[in-house]
Amino acid sequence: MAEVEIVLVEPLYDGNIGFAARVMKNFGFTNLTLVNPPEITVEAIARSSHARDVLENARVCSLEEVIRDSGMLVATTGELSKSISTAMRMPYYTPSELREILKKPEGRVSILFGRENWGLSNEEVGRCDVICTIPTSHEYPILNISHAVGIVCYELANLARGEYELATRQEMESMYAHFSTFLGEIGHPDYKRENTQVMLRRIFGRTALTPREVSILQGIMSRTEWHLSHPDEGC
Amino acid sequence: MAEVEIVLVEPLYDGNIGFAARVMKNFGFTNLTLVNPPEITVEAIARSSHARDVLENARVCSLEEVIRDSGMLVATTGELSKSISTAMRMPYYTPSELREILKKPEGRVSILFGRENWGLSNEEVGRCDVICTIPTSHEYPILNISHAVGIVCYELANLARGEYELATRQEMESMYAHFSTFLGEIGHPDYKRENTQVMLRRIFGRTALTPREVSILQGIMSRTEWHLSHPDEGC
Repeated sequence: MAEVEIVLVEPLYDGNIGFAARVMKNFGFTNLTLVNPPEITVEAIARSSHARDVLENARVCSLEEVIRDSGMLVATTGELSKSISTAMRMPYYTPSELREILKKPEGRVSILFGRENWGLSNEEVGRCDVICTIPTSHEYPILNISHAVGIVCYELANLARGEYELATRQEMESMYAHFSTFLGEIGHPDYKRENTQVMLRRIFGRTALTPREVSILQGIMSRTEWHLSHPDEGC
Repeated sequence: MAEVEIVLVEPLYDGNIGFAARVMKNFGFTNLTLVNPPEITVEAIARSSHARDVLENARVCSLEEVIRDSGMLVATTGELSKSISTAMRMPYYTPSELREILKKPEGRVSILFGRENWGLSNEEVGRCDVICTIPTSHEYPILNISHAVGIVCYELANLARGEYELATRQEMESMYAHFSTFLGEIGHPDYKRENTQVMLRRIFGRTALTPREVSILQGIMSRTEWHLSHPDEGC
């Protein structure tokens, strides 16, 4: 199965971290990563209950390190996060749709949960491959972070063994960088560039590409570039 | 849609009640009932956050009153509750299966969550129509009660309008009482009686009967009883 990593990005309250560790373990997940966490006190330890091991083994690292080590990055966002631009957020998937996406690939999938007060930033969401939104009531859409973690873990529990290996982050980023230079070479307008790149990341992020598929896509771009720079050579 | 009522049976910690109220409202549910709750302190109010209204409007009543007013009673149990006998627990449904059961009927559905330390008693489970179990890891199956409430509410959110009216509790209990006397009349062994009654409750509980169906079943029993007591009359 995909190796699921739960990433809490700058959580504010250590009690929530303890609660998140507990509900992760309730559904069989143990890889907890904390980006810039607060001090872990007895509050977190008490709330983690019999998942103290998950809490104590949590990896503390930077978001850059999470991104570097992950085959697929999933941003979780609240349903009505107005701070996240529409282009960034679409299309998004429910936790049960995310489960469908993760059925086949094998590799590390990192699921990011944002800060209790304002979630993930536009930039953080923009760097993710897939967006997952828990459908909530419009009247009160703000879930406690441990409840959000619980619902995602509940949906993703007992994923079967994956059928193929995910491309690595390096391979994916190399492809995205290639897209960027390619857009420049075909004269794609600068003011559209960023949105187009986010859109390409959304499309290819959710398709869970294999290393070979990434290589084929890059090959197509390289071949196209060669022809662009050799207009007289024919095919 | 079915009118969902979340019932916390003898919760121990008021903080959990506040958290449960919050996650209920996150998924659009507001009917909270507390059976023999602890004192509600600032802890519960803080944790309810913007669902303070749900907490403050909670009904406090006895389990008898819950049963009396409900069209369908759902017991939630942990996956490995060894204290609950197998006969009592089978068959059980996952939250998503419960959603399927609740798609068509219209009426009050009460979902019972047990005590933090030992859940619902055998007797309480035995009085319910349907059993719902959240699939958890065998290694650590004990969910915090607010996480259990959250997952059930997440699954049941946005149920469409029901297609038919549920039989009332009075109609159901009258039918079950009729089953009991009927079993006596056909000489069903006493030592099997209780298990058979629980099984009948499981079967008819999950079928979400209409008042007319209950009346037809009772009619069949009455007709049978008449023939049992008039063996010479023929058909």
